[in-house]
Amino acid sequence: MKKDIIPNHDIITRTPFPASKKIFVKGRIHDIKVPMREISLEPTTHKLTGKVEENPAVTVYDTSGAYTDVNVDIDITKGLDRTREQWVLDRDDVEYLSNISSDYGKERLEDSKLDYLRFPNLHHRPLKAKKGQNVSQMHYARKGIITPEMEYVAIRENQRREELMQQGIDFKQHPGQSFGANIPTGFITPEFVRDEIAKGRAIIPCNINHPELEPMIIGRNFLVKINANIGNSAVTSSIAEEVEKAVWACHWGADTIMDLSTGQNIHETREWIIRNSPVPIGTVPIYQALEKVNGAAEDLTWEIFRDTLIEQAEQGVSYFTIHAGVLLRYVPLTADRITGIVSRGGSIMAKWCLAHHKENFLYTHFEDICQIMKDYDVSFSLGDGLRPGCLADANDAAQFGELETLGELTKIAWKHDIQVMIEGPGHVPMQLIKENMEKQLDDCFEAPFYTLGPLTTDIAPGYDHITSAIGAAQIGWYGTAMLCYVTPKEHLGLPNKKDVKDGVITYKIAAHAADLAKGHPGSQYRDNALSKARFEFRWNDQFNLSLDPDTAREFHDETLPADGAKIAHFCSMCGPKFCSMKISQEVREYAAQIKEDEKAALEKGMQEKSQEFLDKGSEIYS
Amino acid sequence: MKKDIIPNHDIITRTPFPASKKIFVKGRIHDIKVPMREISLEPTTHKLTGKVEENPAVTVYDTSGAYTDVNVDIDITKGLDRTREQWVLDRDDVEYLSNISSDYGKERLEDSKLDYLRFPNLHHRPLKAKKGQNVSQMHYARKGIITPEMEYVAIRENQRREELMQQGIDFKQHPGQSFGANIPTGFITPEFVRDEIAKGRAIIPCNINHPELEPMIIGRNFLVKINANIGNSAVTSSIAEEVEKAVWACHWGADTIMDLSTGQNIHETREWIIRNSPVPIGTVPIYQALEKVNGAAEDLTWEIFRDTLIEQAEQGVSYFTIHAGVLLRYVPLTADRITGIVSRGGSIMAKWCLAHHKENFLYTHFEDICQIMKDYDVSFSLGDGLRPGCLADANDAAQFGELETLGELTKIAWKHDIQVMIEGPGHVPMQLIKENMEKQLDDCFEAPFYTLGPLTTDIAPGYDHITSAIGAAQIGWYGTAMLCYVTPKEHLGLPNKKDVKDGVITYKIAAHAADLAKGHPGSQYRDNALSKARFEFRWNDQFNLSLDPDTAREFHDETLPADGAKIAHFCSMCGPKFCSMKISQEVREYAAQIKEDEKAALEKGMQEKSQEFLDKGSEIYS
Repeated sequence: MKKDIIPNHDIITRTPFPASKKIFVKGRIHDIKVPMREISLEPTTHKLTGKVEENPAVTVYDTSGAYTDVNVDIDITKGLDRTREQWVLDRDDVEYLSNISSDYGKERLEDSKLDYLRFPNLHHRPLKAKKGQNVSQMHYARKGIITPEMEYVAIRENQRREELMQQGIDFKQHPGQSFGANIPTGFITPEFVRDEIAKGRAIIPCNINHPELEPMIIGRNFLVKINANIGNSAVTSSIAEEVEKAVWACHWGADTIMDLSTGQNIHETREWIIRNSPVPIGTVPIYQALEKVNGAAEDLTWEIFRDTLIEQAEQGVSYFTIHAGVLLRYVPLTADRITGIVSRGGSIMAKWCLAHHKENFLYTHFEDICQIMKDYDVSFSLGDGLRPGCLADANDAAQFGELETLGELTKIAWKHDIQVMIEGPGHVPMQLIKENMEKQLDDCFEAPFYTLGPLTTDIAPGYDHITSAIGAAQIGWYGTAMLCYVTPKEHLGLPNKKDVKDGVITYKIAAHAADLAKGHPGSQYRDNALSKARFEFRWNDQFNLSLDPDTAREFHDETLPADGAKIAHFCSMCGPKFCSMKISQEVREYAAQIKEDEKAALEKGMQEKSQEFLDKGSEIYS
Repeated sequence: MKKDIIPNHDIITRTPFPASKKIFVKGRIHDIKVPMREISLEPTTHKLTGKVEENPAVTVYDTSGAYTDVNVDIDITKGLDRTREQWVLDRDDVEYLSNISSDYGKERLEDSKLDYLRFPNLHHRPLKAKKGQNVSQMHYARKGIITPEMEYVAIRENQRREELMQQGIDFKQHPGQSFGANIPTGFITPEFVRDEIAKGRAIIPCNINHPELEPMIIGRNFLVKINANIGNSAVTSSIAEEVEKAVWACHWGADTIMDLSTGQNIHETREWIIRNSPVPIGTVPIYQALEKVNGAAEDLTWEIFRDTLIEQAEQGVSYFTIHAGVLLRYVPLTADRITGIVSRGGSIMAKWCLAHHKENFLYTHFEDICQIMKDYDVSFSLGDGLRPGCLADANDAAQFGELETLGELTKIAWKHDIQVMIEGPGHVPMQLIKENMEKQLDDCFEAPFYTLGPLTTDIAPGYDHITSAIGAAQIGWYGTAMLCYVTPKEHLGLPNKKDVKDGVITYKIAAHAADLAKGHPGSQYRDNALSKARFEFRWNDQFNLSLDPDTAREFHDETLPADGAKIAHFCSMCGPKFCSMKISQEVREYAAQIKEDEKAALEKGMQEKSQEFLDKGSEIYS
């Protein structure tokens, strides 16, 4: 087995975005500050009048963490600032353990052969709820408490709403597009956030042992979020690469990261990732549990799984994908599918069920799992182990049977005040997507939906970021709260950094298209600012306002590399003589001139009339 | 001005697709043969039984022309075979002219300085309708005539329907998804094609002077088509590059090509492209007309435009984008838009209208244009000169006003039996897309819709193939007949070969996703075949069945380059121990074994019962 490579500073992306600075909005209830990215713009010079008009800066949602803050020193061997730790301690319902609780975790910790790759600044004393306490955000919400996390996401979601409303911008909502969405047209208030969490319609995944994370919310009445999967496998990857992939994914806009490692040193890899991640981390604990039994699904036990949950919860994983809905009776329903069971977790549990001819132990131990979740505030991501792996298998009895069971489990989790989201497909042709959303809302009582794509055709391996972005945008519009990205490597290989970026940008597009379609207030502001820059040939602003300024600039450079071209009033598509934007500006100026002329003519006419009036002796009633 | 580079054989793509051969399906009415691509598959070996099962070859729609036929010699200085010429002559309603009719065309022809770049095998005697005749497909259709072109597209559209129906496959149609689409669940018959063309619901763009083209049909009751734009500009490009771009675009799946050249030697470039193109070519004649007046829109005249139409019609252009709907009264409606008028043709005509304060001469001379169209069977692509250039301008009064005028013009064209399609936007957020399709069908009496995207967000320059594929798939599903591709370079620069391929593949995905959603019979067959190959680890089949086998294989090679990996029963995502597909197969085999066991137990039980029965003396009623 090859030696794992630990990260060093050089490989971590720290480039800030061009023309951008980090700003912080302070809380009113709590002593918190919420980072946003402010993009400054060039002024507009009106050709006709020569008048110079300032363009206000555009503030955008920022997932990149402290890495893009030039004022912060980052040491990845120490991890990010543990800002949230005090918020958690202030609630006075947690305690530091004297040591980690997991047997496996202790074993790894005591193994000196692993010293070289262990995260150096390791905290051996995890936090845990005091006996009888429940530290989940849902629990607080239901008690009527607005936590710092809730105020944080409220401010974060508002983006530029406050300043826009001060500018007198009126938010209009497109009604009824997103399955009865309830997006407030004014501010998102902390109270609204609390209420949504209390009702189970949104979650803030924020394990008390991940104090480095910047809280974010997943729910259909908020901005659509995206998740990026990373993780090593037996075949490839290193700790160094995975940490950089996580930072890199956040840089481009990932709202959460799932660490799906299935290779060696999963425990240590995860520690490095969490300590350096500004976003919540999700995992599929059964993957690691399977590693512990050397890949033999039938050897899995509740005890091994339980220890894995505690191990990961104490490291700071914020949501667990749990395939508790793969019931014995559903397994034969997949036998006639073209692609059977394609979820890894689903197939592991199906094999276990068949091998023992017993009900899925994740299902039978579900209440035990809830107990662990509330000790650390880990959210459920109820896994769709029987999701379709191709169009032909979409919306079948196995898939929808499991979905009903996930609804049943949601109710159990809610009984314990545990936050829940529901995973969804997969591969679904466009005309069958809406049914997925409708059934999920019905069967799972409006718990947030978290889908993988869905891919809308199976014939384009190498382009499945695109086949799935089509479905993702659509289901996001219908109400899905978070979209799990798909990279170009899907079905073919492990994503490298380029693939991760392609996947993230593609999914930012899908999520933003969905926000626009849902009428999320303020969403279109960035589109409008970029379009105005485009029309006015402010090339730099056009690049800087885009999701990927580097690529936009690079593509422009390919045809017109000169610096002068960045202020040229034409572009390479049509050349200097033949630009529709240029002609259109001339049309506008021409029309303005005509208006001026008309005004002048009118004034002249008025003067003549006026003179006539005077000549006639100024009698009103002549 | 740099010297233009003419094409040579080396730069033309001739690589056939892997595991593919060209097959030909013969006509029953006419002596025609329709090319298709047949992809042969590897057999499946069942692990449990060892049984080997053949997988039938998959036939796919083929736009690549003779270039992928290893049995054809191609000489690009001679052009492709003029197969269709005899079909046209057989109708006995055309005549060869003694020379080309256009003054400008003659001038170019007589200019010996252009000899070096002129297409060598030039036909100086174009075909034209005999006086009083109308050679449009709509004219024949309305007279009840099924032309070879109609039978050709009927066979082509059926793809594998005939063999599938012989295999007893039952086509199910998803009802009512595509705005009352009328897709036949059985065969597409030549009579159905004729009827759709007669009603104006579909067009076959096939200028009598482009005998090299393989006929294709555009209409919402047929497969969704895609167009690729190519063309030089004043800033960049060469004839050689443009011809290869055309061949390359067809190779990857473009159904039509628009030559949007605005640079030098437009006339000669077009000749090279048409003579070597297996797909219909469209243009925007106003671009070339503007070049003829040195870019001064106000100097354009009907006479110059008319000569340009005839010049291009006699070269073989099959559809003209004509911006006849940009009326004087609509122009001021664009003044308050963020991006004004973004269509090049639209802004030219707007400028002309304002400069002369007269009505658009394309509108006032519309019946004169019809006369030219019917002489050569050029189809109208009625241009949306006032389409929105950003989300904020979508579905506004200018756009929808023009659309109504396009409907009025459609009626006039149909009065002359001229084929018509309608161009559409552009930039439209998802929730406003459906309205575009509904209004187009209403206002334009079900004439085929041909949209550019639409882009569903403005914030991702560099990725507008993706922002627009989301909208394109959706509007294709709703009933748009042809999707004009957008490349990653949109808004930034001129597409190179990589961009053209990315644009074409992305739009094949959108079009196919739409076909699937519309329930186009047989569409899902390829998806299912690929999914089956994926499940059975037939890696080569998975690559070969994909839209882009090269990229799929390359991505797989990146992680697992060994040849052995192409038959490995695992993939790089999970490694050998941890594959859900592998586990799922085991589950299936396990389930099959249980069934076998049950059967055996049942038989054993039956035997015991039987023995008991015998022992008891074989009394039925004991």
